[in-house]
Amino acid sequence: MSVLTRFGVSIDSQLIKKFDALIGKKGYTTRSEAIRDMIRDMLVDQEWESGKQETVGTITIVYNHHTRELEHALTDMQHKSFHQIVSTLHVHLDAHNCLEVLVVKGKSHEIREIADRLIGTKGVKHGKLTMTTTGKELV
Amino acid sequence: MSVLTRFGVSIDSQLIKKFDALIGKKGYTTRSEAIRDMIRDMLVDQEWESGKQETVGTITIVYNHHTRELEHALTDMQHKSFHQIVSTLHVHLDAHNCLEVLVVKGKSHEIREIADRLIGTKGVKHGKLTMTTTGKELV
Amino acid sequence: MSVLTRFGVSIDSQLIKKFDALIGKKGYTTRSEAIRDMIRDMLVDQEWESGKQETVGTITIVYNHHTRELEHALTDMQHKSFHQIVSTLHVHLDAHNCLEVLVVKGKSHEIREIADRLIGTKGVKHGKLTMTTTGKELV
Amino acid sequence: MSVLTRFGVSIDSQLIKKFDALIGKKGYTTRSEAIRDMIRDMLVDQEWESGKQETVGTITIVYNHHTRELEHALTDMQHKSFHQIVSTLHVHLDAHNCLEVLVVKGKSHEIREIADRLIGTKGVKHGKLTMTTTGKELV
Repeated sequence: MSVLTRFGVSIDSQLIKKFDALIGKKGYTTRSEAIRDMIRDMLVDQEWESGKQETVGTITIVYNHHTRELEHALTDMQHKSFHQIVSTLHVHLDAHNCLEVLVVKGKSHEIREIADRLIGTKGVKHGKLTMTTTGKELV
Repeated sequence: MSVLTRFGVSIDSQLIKKFDALIGKKGYTTRSEAIRDMIRDMLVDQEWESGKQETVGTITIVYNHHTRELEHALTDMQHKSFHQIVSTLHVHLDAHNCLEVLVVKGKSHEIREIADRLIGTKGVKHGKLTMTTTGKELV
Repeated sequence: MSVLTRFGVSIDSQLIKKFDALIGKKGYTTRSEAIRDMIRDMLVDQEWESGKQETVGTITIVYNHHTRELEHALTDMQHKSFHQIVSTLHVHLDAHNCLEVLVVKGKSHEIREIADRLIGTKGVKHGKLTMTTTGKELV
Repeated sequence: MSVLTRFGVSIDSQLIKKFDALIGKKGYTTRSEAIRDMIRDMLVDQEWESGKQETVGTITIVYNHHTRELEHALTDMQHKSFHQIVSTLHVHLDAHNCLEVLVVKGKSHEIREIADRLIGTKGVKHGKLTMTTTGKELV
């Protein structure tokens, strides 16, 4: 069960005015929520830097499904790392292009390695690793 | 139909040695593939900067599904942007935490706006926008 | 003259504990200072995105001063943009390598253009643009 | 003495056309130079990730020089790290705001630590670490 606490921030009145305008544009309804998000972001960065805990990443790749043997190679690779790959989403972008998102769980270096392999596969046009979190350590 | 061409790169022999070692570790089997990937990456960055073409992004969010009204708010928001949101993947990370990935298609500023709204929703612990591509302009 | 104000942030007690540990490691002595820094960072990002105001960037380049005509080209380029280039720092890293930092003031697209030109000059081994601020809009 | 070598890249003709347009805009006169720059960039990233070699960073800070004791604190901190801090550049942006760039040499974690301390100092409005290189390992 989570316990809420409260602390005060002293800030120049012009600075908070600009902050309010910016977070309003981003859809935040309270300052607290925007600040909690910045704090969580900083903690996720550190989680990935330290590399000790289990974490979560998503790997996004765009590829042409006509590329011979690519789909086979991707499937094969994913089966070898089935302990880490939790789930995948496949989208047909047009007649030729597919987008695939993989949700991967593990130590940061393991996730990076899987991402490197997938992005480096011949036929993958574009790939990126997004570093997120299991959410366990973030309230 | 794609036409292959070939060009030469002149480079210091020590520099290419280091490059070979690095791309080998990343799983590339040829220099050409590694260089094409760097080129595509640069083009996707520009696609997002220029903001004129239709492009694709994935939005990753992690949230606690116990947060009252969050799921309702997320669903609602996604329906309002149904023209842009192509598909979503939902993963149960543990008893409390969910990860959701949305594949979004549109102009870069439209995708950014949807991402801002989703990430700013109360109850979302962590969120990130990944900028990728429709693949149409990248061979 | 600046007017200080104060606002409250409600936050889970576990989350603030982790935040305290992290900012302690980074050398912050108060939460307010860490939060003000995060807010300013967000505002500088937006300043560069909007591109309307005058802003400041630093361009860092590393190059081999033996490269024929490089120094001449760099000097020439800097004189053409003398309205924007405020100051430069030159460091002799070793017998061959020089590092130069340029402080550039202007619209974000002007600064980007100067950075692109400098980094793209033959003989420059590594170059990066750092986006900062005039400080005028940040209290 | 550096030995030049040459290798061929096979690439789709549409992809290279787009690449040519983009690097032209960035001021590159040859493809080789643009590709060497991308390769060096990748190697500098790895240099900073591995953390074993000595490397170079620049730390950019913007601050209000009226902030009591700030200048003293900054000078003090720089003297404690004088082994790492190679040189600094100071620019008076306006009547109130100063920009300072520090060139720092050392292991990546040492440079990060100095950057964290400086950026976290009360009175520093904005700060950023730029990761570059000694240039020794890059031809």
